Amino acid sequence: MFPDTTIAQVDEILQQAWQAFHTYRKCTLKERAAFMKAIAVELENAGDELVQVAMRETNLPEARLRGERARTIFQLNSYAEACERGDWLEARIDTAIPGKTPPKPDLRKMLVPLGPVVVFGASNFPFAYSTAGGDTACAFAAGCPVIVKAHPAHAQTSELVASAILKAAKTVNMPEGIFTHVHGAVETGKALVTHPLTKAVGFTGSYAGGKQLFDWGNQRAQPIPVFAEMGSVNPVFLLPGKMEAEAESIAKLYAGSITLGVGQFCTNPGLIIGIESAALQQFINTLSEEIKNIPPAKMLHTGIAKAFAEHKSDALKQEGVILAGHSSTEPTDKSIEAAASIATVTGKDFLSNPLLSREVFGPYSIVVRCSDAQEMLQITQQLEGQLTATVMATNEDLSAHEDLLEYIKNICGRFILNSVPTGVEVCLSMQHGGPFPATTDARFTSVGADGIKRFARPVAFQNWEDAHLPAELQNANPLGIWRTVDNELTKNAL
Amino acid sequence: MFPDTTIAQVDEILQQAWQAFHTYRKCTLKERAAFMKAIAVELENAGDELVQVAMRETNLPEARLRGERARTIFQLNSYAEACERGDWLEARIDTAIPGKTPPKPDLRKMLVPLGPVVVFGASNFPFAYSTAGGDTACAFAAGCPVIVKAHPAHAQTSELVASAILKAAKTVNMPEGIFTHVHGAVETGKALVTHPLTKAVGFTGSYAGGKQLFDWGNQRAQPIPVFAEMGSVNPVFLLPGKMEAEAESIAKLYAGSITLGVGQFCTNPGLIIGIESAALQQFINTLSEEIKNIPPAKMLHTGIAKAFAEHKSDALKQEGVILAGHSSTEPTDKSIEAAASIATVTGKDFLSNPLLSREVFGPYSIVVRCSDAQEMLQITQQLEGQLTATVMATNEDLSAHEDLLEYIKNICGRFILNSVPTGVEVCLSMQHGGPFPATTDARFTSVGADGIKRFARPVAFQNWEDAHLPAELQNANPLGIWRTVDNELTKNAL
Repeated sequence: MFPDTTIAQVDEILQQAWQAFHTYRKCTLKERAAFMKAIAVELENAGDELVQVAMRETNLPEARLRGERARTIFQLNSYAEACERGDWLEARIDTAIPGKTPPKPDLRKMLVPLGPVVVFGASNFPFAYSTAGGDTACAFAAGCPVIVKAHPAHAQTSELVASAILKAAKTVNMPEGIFTHVHGAVETGKALVTHPLTKAVGFTGSYAGGKQLFDWGNQRAQPIPVFAEMGSVNPVFLLPGKMEAEAESIAKLYAGSITLGVGQFCTNPGLIIGIESAALQQFINTLSEEIKNIPPAKMLHTGIAKAFAEHKSDALKQEGVILAGHSSTEPTDKSIEAAASIATVTGKDFLSNPLLSREVFGPYSIVVRCSDAQEMLQITQQLEGQLTATVMATNEDLSAHEDLLEYIKNICGRFILNSVPTGVEVCLSMQHGGPFPATTDARFTSVGADGIKRFARPVAFQNWEDAHLPAELQNANPLGIWRTVDNELTKNAL
Repeated sequence: MFPDTTIAQVDEILQQAWQAFHTYRKCTLKERAAFMKAIAVELENAGDELVQVAMRETNLPEARLRGERARTIFQLNSYAEACERGDWLEARIDTAIPGKTPPKPDLRKMLVPLGPVVVFGASNFPFAYSTAGGDTACAFAAGCPVIVKAHPAHAQTSELVASAILKAAKTVNMPEGIFTHVHGAVETGKALVTHPLTKAVGFTGSYAGGKQLFDWGNQRAQPIPVFAEMGSVNPVFLLPGKMEAEAESIAKLYAGSITLGVGQFCTNPGLIIGIESAALQQFINTLSEEIKNIPPAKMLHTGIAKAFAEHKSDALKQEGVILAGHSSTEPTDKSIEAAASIATVTGKDFLSNPLLSREVFGPYSIVVRCSDAQEMLQITQQLEGQLTATVMATNEDLSAHEDLLEYIKNICGRFILNSVPTGVEVCLSMQHGGPFPATTDARFTSVGADGIKRFARPVAFQNWEDAHLPAELQNANPLGIWRTVDNELTKNAL
């Protein structure tokens, strides 16, 4: 539908982005924020057409897409506010002590942008994690130009969003090259990531895709940071006291979470770990019953539907895996529709088969029946990094399993009590990240304004006179931002 | 002298460090700080013997080593204070809004330790960047056990410092395995970096060494962050007004900086860029005269002396490079002593020869004679990432070269006005880092308490009751730390 961007065009685009960088990085926080807010306005202005096109391309329902656009607008506006607030700059001032031996110079530090950022959008979030999504918003806040490679599964939607961004850029007089939208396959992606003027990469998607970008980024003559969020199985731990009390309602809660959005969330609970008991059996029974009543639904595209069918079938073929519940309705079109399923397996079989802890992207979850708490601990110690981990527990359970809780905390980015992992709140306290393979760098997040820091680095200014310092670091604190002055946080002038 | 640690021993060591991690990460900030302060005490207690052994192993003079130990003690104490102060935890709280659609959950976030950290010490800083140096102090503050591979050039010094750390660990009841000291060559280093239980690496040294560790870290099944500080040429830009006024005194200042510590600092100014003029000629003449009077001096070890002689000789053989000044005294022992040298080259020849911007580790610097300001800008745009960049300029110079200043800022970690890059102050505003190849990740520093963040990652707690949250995130703010609550920094309780 859209022609692939050629390698020669990629070079032109990066040259232009590099030029834009030298203008944009000098923009004030206010100017950056105004640009982001203008994009939010244009996304709203894109109106019904944007939603209709996205519905056609992604099979996602209208209400979900309207909600996701609202969330994307909220992201742009709230990161714009965070950008202006300036906490993320980590402004630090250490005043001179001329009498010290040797004399201590005046030193001031703040974050500055890295340079052009390449963003790869996610298939499952055409707005919030795509063209004008979190990565783009964070890069703009940091002071970086952005090149977005459209996700081929929603290329037309991406075009419309790109137009909105370019319109906003024009409205607030941003430099040519501040944003570029490209189409293409693997070769285009590789050319973008390996171009010398690309300084960072943001990605949300599969392990295979993210790991490839990460490797390209590291193998460059000048390696660059590649933040790839690659999903996870988001384990849920069912502790005995809580099961005893609420097995049935928890099963109902999870039937909803597992099948929400046809299971196409990176925080989908794909692994549920309990301890053998009558209550766990009741949980499995109820969950299976609930799943039977979930009708098949269209996935994002046929590629994802095919992968889901294959991965689910692979999982169900493994030693000891039992299909416990399955949507009672047959899909009318198997090439695009997914039927929800629940499987079970013993802790012993799970421990001996690494394939069972791999993500099956879609409405599928496996319940592990541990023989005891010790086996649950053993499984936890064997799990890879996760975006989220959830514990269903009473206060007594928590006190009785402190060791287990420490191990769970150690493998996840977000640690949830008595709730579901689906639903990612956009706020500063959100951590959407986690140890590899959930992401390529556990020290960063892709949701919340802390995500800006992926695309910025500190520069210290030594011995500069006030007039030649950036406003952020001047004595008078003209921007009124929080700064750490001689080890104390303050908004005061010097 | 010390036997190499075997691959089997590396595994045992990491298993033990992993066990220690599960105890140590639960230690309070106060307990971590007490451990670091105890190490500082033991370093002091190590007394004259430590200095004598270091003198013998490194050829560094007594006053320098006493100063470096004092700095190392200061680092441990000041990072301990920063650890307790807790700003680095980036504690964030977003309170619940149950009435929102969908309801906003209670979310709280803070940094937690990554796990066992492997540290490779630097040959040129036996105390401050080695066994109990900045990387080790940062890792302990973050809550991580440390494994140090001794630098073979000062293995005995490293042993003594390791004993001090182990003594301190015993005094304050740290778990077995909190710190391990190993010896070995490349294979030991590789085994340490590639062990699955190693979660991060800190390194200070050569490009070849640092890049190798970075590649090993990224090629693991589970990649880990490797922060390698690999030195740079630290360009100095001589702007015309300043030269006109102070060529001679600047030349004298730089003769000292270039030869300080026999040029063996990663912030040594190896590249000086001026614009052709009578004043620049005067600068070169004075600098050359000053260098003649600097007597040869012993380098750290014969390997470094040999590399210096070779790299200097290579540089001097390049097209258009002229030896402008050289120590007038011949070294008595060429295998270990280095004679200082100054070379010059035109901007044109410099631009066409990438070898001339490579680091010559030792008392050597090349002055580039640009034909005009445009050529200076062109050189800046071609330079790789640097730990520091320095501008010698009047206020008029600064106003006249704003574009140049922006480009310089864009390639360095620390931007200095009218001073010298040697001398790295230990304080929060210090940035000791910079774009590749100065370091492997420009977003972090290895000096100053912000270095702690290399070894920690955020975890968000969703929907937890107060009693089960870490003290750092509890409503009452029992530790009295700064936290961002609903987007506002505060020390208040909730």
